[in-house]
Amino acid sequence: MTTLTDTGSFTAQLRAQSRRYHDQHPFHVKMNEGRLSRRQVRGWVANRFYYQANIPRKDAAILANCPDREVRRRWVLRVLDHDGTTGDQGGIGAWLRLAEAVGLGRDEVLDERHLVPGVRFAVDAYVNFARTRPWVEAVASSLTELFAPDLMADRLAAFERRYPWIDRDGLGYFRSRLAQAPRDAEHALQVVTEHCRSADEQARAVAALSFKCEVLWSILDAIDQAFPDSDSDSDSDSDEAGQL
Amino acid sequence: MTTLTDTGSFTAQLRAQSRRYHDQHPFHVKMNEGRLSRRQVRGWVANRFYYQANIPRKDAAILANCPDREVRRRWVLRVLDHDGTTGDQGGIGAWLRLAEAVGLGRDEVLDERHLVPGVRFAVDAYVNFARTRPWVEAVASSLTELFAPDLMADRLAAFERRYPWIDRDGLGYFRSRLAQAPRDAEHALQVVTEHCRSADEQARAVAALSFKCEVLWSILDAIDQAFPDSDSDSDSDSDEAGQL
Repeated sequence: MTTLTDTGSFTAQLRAQSRRYHDQHPFHVKMNEGRLSRRQVRGWVANRFYYQANIPRKDAAILANCPDREVRRRWVLRVLDHDGTTGDQGGIGAWLRLAEAVGLGRDEVLDERHLVPGVRFAVDAYVNFARTRPWVEAVASSLTELFAPDLMADRLAAFERRYPWIDRDGLGYFRSRLAQAPRDAEHALQVVTEHCRSADEQARAVAALSFKCEVLWSILDAIDQAFPDSDSDSDSDSDEAGQL
Repeated sequence: MTTLTDTGSFTAQLRAQSRRYHDQHPFHVKMNEGRLSRRQVRGWVANRFYYQANIPRKDAAILANCPDREVRRRWVLRVLDHDGTTGDQGGIGAWLRLAEAVGLGRDEVLDERHLVPGVRFAVDAYVNFARTRPWVEAVASSLTELFAPDLMADRLAAFERRYPWIDRDGLGYFRSRLAQAPRDAEHALQVVTEHCRSADEQARAVAALSFKCEVLWSILDAIDQAFPDSDSDSDSDSDEAGQL
């Protein structure tokens, strides 16, 4: 078994997975170019909520599998960040405010009526991965956060410029992730580089991150299929009442 | 299927499980009567540490399985209570201070050298239960906390009066649980009575609590077997250096 003692080359391999990140998915490219209809934006927000709502469960699964108290003490901050303490605090609450800002009712997001099977499948697969794989691999799968801040900055700018019909106050989720993602990614990268010393361990970490990129890509595939470009969107685009 | 609409009788069934609680185990009776040797006290503290160390993982498993954000927001406090934020904060840190107070080195507790197979087996079974059973059953299994405050009060009094060789400063864990356990038990009881409405659901909740009583009982069985009453204990009893 070859041991890669060079943390730099391991880190480079992890970072190279950015080529597979969902910012390059056609749906995401269209989103950042301002070419999504209201119906498509709403479809994305409603479906992506299922991902947001399951993040604390994914992170709790990592906590449950992790025997290292110091790692848990930092990792639990992710659960607190997403669940929040009260009311609309936390990432889930912020996403519900985004839903309202794009014209969705809170109920129609919470009751999952717009959730398409492919999104449920991909998100459940991610939670299941964190539950059943060794905890260090699950930590490695979270490293898409290395790529997230660039995406968030672009997305925030796109939403502010290209979709003037969206209430700016609803974009708090993206703003908060600009600060949280680098902090979280730094910790996860530290854990992964400390624990993955052999070539096998490093290969499994890279595979875990690749898997996570596929989860995010599959989510957009499913949304893209369910909410295609269409002439009939012009109706939805003028619909101020927010029907999806 | 009979529905027990009477929450009172369901709660009474849960409380009746106190008959099976480990305060009535011979080893615990001996402990509270001041009849344990130093070696036996140390064996109990070192082995029970494995239970303490796994509590946050058990609670994180419940978080991972629970789709209700409001329940998670309260349940995560248990993880924070036991892991703490820094240094020796939290229940695990407090138990390590107890270990030092009874004359154990911190290392010999952390490296599990005194851990007996039956204790590992019972604790792992508890964590596995929380991981694999429906989350409401796992919550029900935590309801031994209904019985804990009485036990903690008796144990605290016993340790202070019967074991004068134990540094009082090491008893902080028992003191903190006097306040935490009733708060935690109240929340868990509320969740269980809200979610278990059918006779089947209520029966499974009672069975879960019964299982947990067996976990605690098995832990004491294993410790009792490994650290029996013995004439040779007189040597250990005079051993101020703290060898187990």
